[in-house]
Amino acid sequence: MADHQNPPITALATPWGSSAIAVIRCSGSGAIELVDRIFVPAGKLATAAPNSVHHGFVVDPDSRARLDEVMVVLLRAPGSYTGEDTVEIMCHGSSAGIQRILAVLLAIGFRQAEPGEFTLRAFMAGKLDLTRAEAVNELVSARTAEAHEMALQRLSGALEQRINAIKARLVTLLAAVDIQLDYPEEDSGEVVIAPEAVVEVRDQIRELLASYRTGRIYQQGVRVAIAGRTNAGKSSLFNELLRQDRSIVSETAGTTRDYIESTIALAGVPVRLYDTAGFRDSSERVETEGMRRSQEILDAADLVLYVIDAGEGVHDSESAMLQQLRDSGRLVGVWNKIDLPAAGARSAPHGFTAVSLNSGAGLPQLIELISERILPASLTWNGEPVIDSLRQKQLLEAADSALGHVLEGLARQIPVDAVALDVEEALHSLGAITGEVTTEDVLSAMFAGFCVGK
Amino acid sequence: MADHQNPPITALATPWGSSAIAVIRCSGSGAIELVDRIFVPAGKLATAAPNSVHHGFVVDPDSRARLDEVMVVLLRAPGSYTGEDTVEIMCHGSSAGIQRILAVLLAIGFRQAEPGEFTLRAFMAGKLDLTRAEAVNELVSARTAEAHEMALQRLSGALEQRINAIKARLVTLLAAVDIQLDYPEEDSGEVVIAPEAVVEVRDQIRELLASYRTGRIYQQGVRVAIAGRTNAGKSSLFNELLRQDRSIVSETAGTTRDYIESTIALAGVPVRLYDTAGFRDSSERVETEGMRRSQEILDAADLVLYVIDAGEGVHDSESAMLQQLRDSGRLVGVWNKIDLPAAGARSAPHGFTAVSLNSGAGLPQLIELISERILPASLTWNGEPVIDSLRQKQLLEAADSALGHVLEGLARQIPVDAVALDVEEALHSLGAITGEVTTEDVLSAMFAGFCVGK
Repeated sequence: MADHQNPPITALATPWGSSAIAVIRCSGSGAIELVDRIFVPAGKLATAAPNSVHHGFVVDPDSRARLDEVMVVLLRAPGSYTGEDTVEIMCHGSSAGIQRILAVLLAIGFRQAEPGEFTLRAFMAGKLDLTRAEAVNELVSARTAEAHEMALQRLSGALEQRINAIKARLVTLLAAVDIQLDYPEEDSGEVVIAPEAVVEVRDQIRELLASYRTGRIYQQGVRVAIAGRTNAGKSSLFNELLRQDRSIVSETAGTTRDYIESTIALAGVPVRLYDTAGFRDSSERVETEGMRRSQEILDAADLVLYVIDAGEGVHDSESAMLQQLRDSGRLVGVWNKIDLPAAGARSAPHGFTAVSLNSGAGLPQLIELISERILPASLTWNGEPVIDSLRQKQLLEAADSALGHVLEGLARQIPVDAVALDVEEALHSLGAITGEVTTEDVLSAMFAGFCVGK
Repeated sequence: MADHQNPPITALATPWGSSAIAVIRCSGSGAIELVDRIFVPAGKLATAAPNSVHHGFVVDPDSRARLDEVMVVLLRAPGSYTGEDTVEIMCHGSSAGIQRILAVLLAIGFRQAEPGEFTLRAFMAGKLDLTRAEAVNELVSARTAEAHEMALQRLSGALEQRINAIKARLVTLLAAVDIQLDYPEEDSGEVVIAPEAVVEVRDQIRELLASYRTGRIYQQGVRVAIAGRTNAGKSSLFNELLRQDRSIVSETAGTTRDYIESTIALAGVPVRLYDTAGFRDSSERVETEGMRRSQEILDAADLVLYVIDAGEGVHDSESAMLQQLRDSGRLVGVWNKIDLPAAGARSAPHGFTAVSLNSGAGLPQLIELISERILPASLTWNGEPVIDSLRQKQLLEAADSALGHVLEGLARQIPVDAVALDVEEALHSLGAITGEVTTEDVLSAMFAGFCVGK
């Protein structure tokens, strides 16, 4: 796509907030000349070499008053992310300053970029296929090293190659059909499309489909709540789990009066961890605001770590809730304080892990158990390309379904040119995954989920 | 300062969070060669020209696995912010990815930068004086265009020049003393230091000192709370004030069950605006949690906009609170709903502004009044350099005090060389403001308040 068809767009590419540096991205036809009009020293950018960096000031186009001291990174078409002329303004990370520069850019002819518009332009310029375009967004939102690695793999084209390999096999099948249709006299009477070949291709598609759950869990993560009566040891467990995470996904633990939450990584999965308020007795549960919020958190949790003081045992008021958690398959029971003399009298309820959060006894087993429950072995990433997009999943399902029709047609021995239509249908779905065939609607829906500036 | 004395340091220069781009800053001796070891295409950076941009990949130094696709901005000493060899890595804005790159940088020999360490190095390299170094931090945290403009003015050296001009006058006074001490035979019997000259200099210092309150209010802003009984029109006023702000300082309004808050700019001042829960009756005020929090917000507010439904009038339960707000000088009374028939019977209490938030009647006057109360004319910025640092204020006070001693000494006709000591004392304090004379303690205390990456 020629550069002159693309109006110049701009957006902040770094998060809002105070920081040393912010980056404002400008791309499109005339982007360099436009920025040059508000840059001092004047006239420097328009004639500058590609891939060069320039120190100077952003100024008001009318008053020439200095708005900020900046570094400007200049990239020329096609050697930029979008394939267009691009200027990246590295300014001071002040929200007031960013606003002033953006206002000036809009005033001189830039338009505010839509979410994902830079990446959309990169796709339109043939810089990346749709699986890689999606990976850009997934990469940015990755919260653990594993999720980052998966997105990076897709960004480097691993999924695109996998899809293209599957497509190549289908194209080979179609070629055989074409030959038979073109030269029917050479019909050897053999089956032109071997069902085994179709099954093999379908299995490859299903393997990718199965990877969707893996991709999702690493990208979206799980919600884990800690519950139990007051003084059962909930906060100790919360802190212990925070300590397990060496990477510190979230630097600040959000604290409210009613519960504490923090994001950690366990087994490579982002875990939103909640320490709820303790239940003192069952009547209180429904009555107070804090208890109501705790209940909401428990209801929404994928996993509930229920802590019981072994010396106290299970209270009557807890039985119903425990049964409910067990029935929903979300219970991890923690039988705490086994090191205290009072614990001796009782044995742990079925399925509870005996620990002392104080001495650390049983803790490694508990962490192991929690990790397995968060990420079952069947969902653990094996390093193969993984899909992590509902769009990709739906298109793979369509391809899978079309190949099912192919197998059905072959079994019923319908004419081979009719079967070929279903093979083409599968090819079409696979082509839509990489963006070889696509529509404007699909593109706008896809990129609308991107962050602005990407 | 020679580059080889500075160990290589690194830090994230953009805010944590998902975004299109993040910038990791690397600076110091060998920074370029070190980054080259984890950059592909290999060996490209070490020989690259200054002010050049390079596309490539950050890789693991051992496995050579790709960690991210990046753009690298290369700056060579002394042509960088710090005056040292510098590499700015523009990577994808994913927290997981940033962590992986930072981990690799630390592994190959970079040290995590201390807060403000890049700017400290810029100061040590003579790239900027202390008033400009402080302005860097103030610029970043500016929340309105006015605060940004003030900081920018300081960054461009306006305050430094003002201080240096004052110093030059004192140096002239000292020179006269020196001449008299060196050539006592030429003593004309005249006063060597004219008190008028000292008073003039002192007035200039006091003018700067007076600007401190202006600087603070634009930089730190004020807290404004909206209070009143339920249905008096608090939320309408809150929304009206949000609409007044064309710049939108904060994009998201934080909402809790008990109150709503948002940051807006009024009269160029950042205003943290709170819409508190309504008081239904006085007994409730002390009893419920929400009321307790509302009270805390009112207590901490610089200004309270108290809304009364004109049709309802002042309730007995409100009188004490209104009196208290009046006494503390923090009350702005809003007599709302004057357009409704019910309002006719009552007149507004003393000091209340009559409005209809519904029809808009009286609203411009109310906004004007609130703006004046937030920023009195005496504190409005007149475009002259302003100080916004406690350190600068204390040093100016010390200089003011020293000049007081000079005037005292002149009045008491003590020997001129004793008077000269106080002039030198004032000069020393002024020199400390720009960093001409300074100590390591002062520097570390100053830069500790910076954000990391700056």
